Parts: sequence; C-alpha cells; structure tokens
Amino acid sequence: VQRLQEADVIFYDRLVDPELLELARRDAERVYVGKAPGSAAWPQDRTNGLIVAAARSGKRVVRLKCGDPGIFARGAEEAAALEAAGIGWEVVPGVTAACAAAAATAGFLTERGRIDAVVLATGQLKPGDPPPNWGRLVAQGTTIALYMAVATAPDVQRALLAAGAPAGTPVDVVARAGCPDAQVLRADLGTLADQMAEADTGAPAIILVKLDKLRVVHSRCARTDANAA
Amino acid sequence: VQRLQEADVIFYDRLVDPELLELARRDAERVYVGKAPGSAAWPQDRTNGLIVAAARSGKRVVRLKCGDPGIFARGAEEAAALEAAGIGWEVVPGVTAACAAAAATAGFLTERGRIDAVVLATGQLKPGDPPPNWGRLVAQGTTIALYMAVATAPDVQRALLAAGAPAGTPVDVVARAGCPDAQVLRADLGTLADQMAEADTGAPAIILVKLDKLRVVHSRCARTDANAA
Repeated sequence: VQRLQEADVIFYDRLVDPELLELARRDAERVYVGKAPGSAAWPQDRTNGLIVAAARSGKRVVRLKCGDPGIFARGAEEAAALEAAGIGWEVVPGVTAACAAAAATAGFLTERGRIDAVVLATGQLKPGDPPPNWGRLVAQGTTIALYMAVATAPDVQRALLAAGAPAGTPVDVVARAGCPDAQVLRADLGTLADQMAEADTGAPAIILVKLDKLRVVHSRCARTDANAA
Repeated sequence: VQRLQEADVIFYDRLVDPELLELARRDAERVYVGKAPGSAAWPQDRTNGLIVAAARSGKRVVRLKCGDPGIFARGAEEAAALEAAGIGWEVVPGVTAACAAAAATAGFLTERGRIDAVVLATGQLKPGDPPPNWGRLVAQGTTIALYMAVATAPDVQRALLAAGAPAGTPVDVVARAGCPDAQVLRADLGTLADQMAEADTGAPAIILVKLDKLRVVHSRCARTDANAA
C-alpha cells in the first residue's frame, strides 16, 4: 500500500483487482499492460521498455502483479531490463496463487505427517522448450500446484497417472484463486480433464493434486471395514 | 486486517510482528501460543484446545501465524480440532516465507526458461518419521526452498550433493524472512553448512537452492573464454 501511494505511474496486469488501483494516489498514472493467456499481443519486451522509460523520466514506478512477483510472473526479465538500465528496484512479495487456492478450498498445502512438500510447477513453458516432465513431480507426501495448466490439463493428467499417481488422487481446481468470485471444482485425477471440460473451467486456474502419504492406508482400512461388514 | 478487527481473542505465534497485533481492537484478548524451535513446551494439542474452548464460549477467534497458514504451519491440525467440535472456520492466505525470502534477496523463485519449478520442503519432519529424502528434490530448473532447516543444514547439503547438485550451486540463506531485520547470506552448496555456522545463522531461516538450467552452460562458456584468453 505504501509503495502504491508513492507511485507516479502503475503498470498493472490483467488479473489485478481494480480495488487495488484505488489505493494509489488519484493523480497517479495507471497503465494496463496485461495479456490474455497465450496471446502475444503485448510482448514482454514492450512492457520492459515502458517500465524503463518511465523510471528514466524520473517517475516512481510500481509494477503491479497479481499473486507473488517471484513465481511465474516474469519478474526476473523486468528486473534484468532495469539492471541493464542502471535503475534501482525492489520486490514486494505477495500471496501466491497456490496459497490463495488452498485457502479457497479450506485446505492446506502441507499436513504434518501426511504431506511434507509442495511443488509449484507450470502447465506452460517458454515456446520452443520441451514440455514439462510432470511425471517426475509425483511423490508420496507432496501437493503439486500447477499454474497456467487449464489448456494442458489432459497432458498433465496423463503424465501424473503414467508416473504412478492413483486415479483416485483428490484434485482441487480453483479458478480465479484469491478473487472474491473464486470457484472450486473437486475432482479426482482419473477424470480430471473431463470434469474440467464439463465445468467449463477457464483460465486462470490453479490445479492442486494432493498425494497424501496416509491416503492409501486410509482407503485400505475402509476396504477392510467394508469386507468385515 | 478486517478479521483482526472483528476478533475477540487472538492466539498468536512467536514470529508474529507485534505491529500486527496493534491492528486488532484495543479490547481484544491477545494470547501467546508460540513455541521455540524443537521445544515441546507448548504442545499443539494445548493450542487446539484453547482455540476450541474460546470459540465454544462464543468468542470470535483469530489464529494469527507468520507466513501462509497452509504451509508448514500445522493449520490442518487446528482445523481438524475445530471440525471435530463443529465450529466453522476459514483460512486467510498469507505471504509464505519462501516468497518473502526471495524478495529479500532481490531474486525470483522462478525465471522463465531457467527455473520453472519451486519445491517447498522442510528440514524437519514429525518426530519418529524417517528423515526427508532431500536428494529426490534435485532437478535442473528448480528452486528448492527449505523451511526449518537450520539445524539439519549439514544433512541437507550432503544429500543434495550426493544427488548430483553441483558444489557451486548458488544458495541464499535468509534469516527472519519478511521481517524488517531480515539477513541474507549468499553461499554455495559445497560449503553451505560451514558458511552458515560461520555467519551464526539462527532459526528461523529459509534456505533457497537455485538449480538453474542455464548455469552449467554459463560456466562452460566462461571457462572457454578464459582458455581462449
């Protein structure tokens, strides 16, 4: 809030809550530099150039992103452009979408004795890079949080199943995590892509896959009880 | 802030900034339920019991933690106690320590084309559980963020090196991430534990290990240039 109130100009993203912009000074310039998923209409270079030009002209600049600027937010590229221009900068951390998504599900990314690691990964890489190896993320006791994975959900599902994740693994898909109108879809890994298609889940969404250490034990107990009954 | 101002009683942790407590109503009860690392002086069960008892007596309760309540914060245990007592609850997400730590280093947990995954893991598990398999976290293009790993830093270092992480891998250790007096130690994996001991790094601290995809290529180029010169 302090930095917003000091800003002469604010470059903001597509997903930024309009109420946040209200916190800035009335005379601050507000510049939209968002891009729709997959669109190259507003290239990163152009954003970098605008930020550098504004700072060079002596303005105090805030680059306002949704979530945490250190996670899948291309902050390093903007920082490198500032470095190259000899302009000082700092990062103000934020609530990353995986944390907002877990809160929206009334769940927790870790659970003592059951889930002791969280992997934040992405459904999309830089164009030209080989597709991510999602299968290697599969490990007991891990929550896998996938950013920008709506379009690649069928591939993610296939890769995780092929790596041995059970079809019954619970998956929460949270659209617009952190926004007042966030929506939670409770699915399982075996039918994830179909359920997302049926619910018409649109980007942005976070996919939370919970590989609970105790889950297999639990379902075994349930089966034993059923057999005993 | 809104929830703090609605609270009749606030149960807060050791690491909570005292200024946060100033945001609550003057007549709100403030109860310290913190514990020092490794100490069992204030067991989780007792905290759970206090929260449930306060809520049962009709009070509005805030359980105030440092960081994000979904990550290594034992939120699931407190939520389970509330569920068992039939008490409604919600999670308000926060800035997790790994994000605050990266911001303190003026760094980024991901960097497009170089680091496309972040693993949040812990240096300490539930007593009795086997030690974490840190080696399996080693993968090119990953930032490993270790929470509560000051005491086990020598074991972490050994495991990551044994799994193939280069000794020259850059490691940032951030003590009191998110606090105004945060301290950054820039180290490398080969001498991490020695450097932490020399700097007398105390808990709480976050250890950020950056396995950059381009790093090996870069150092090879540097070597080639040196040879050419």
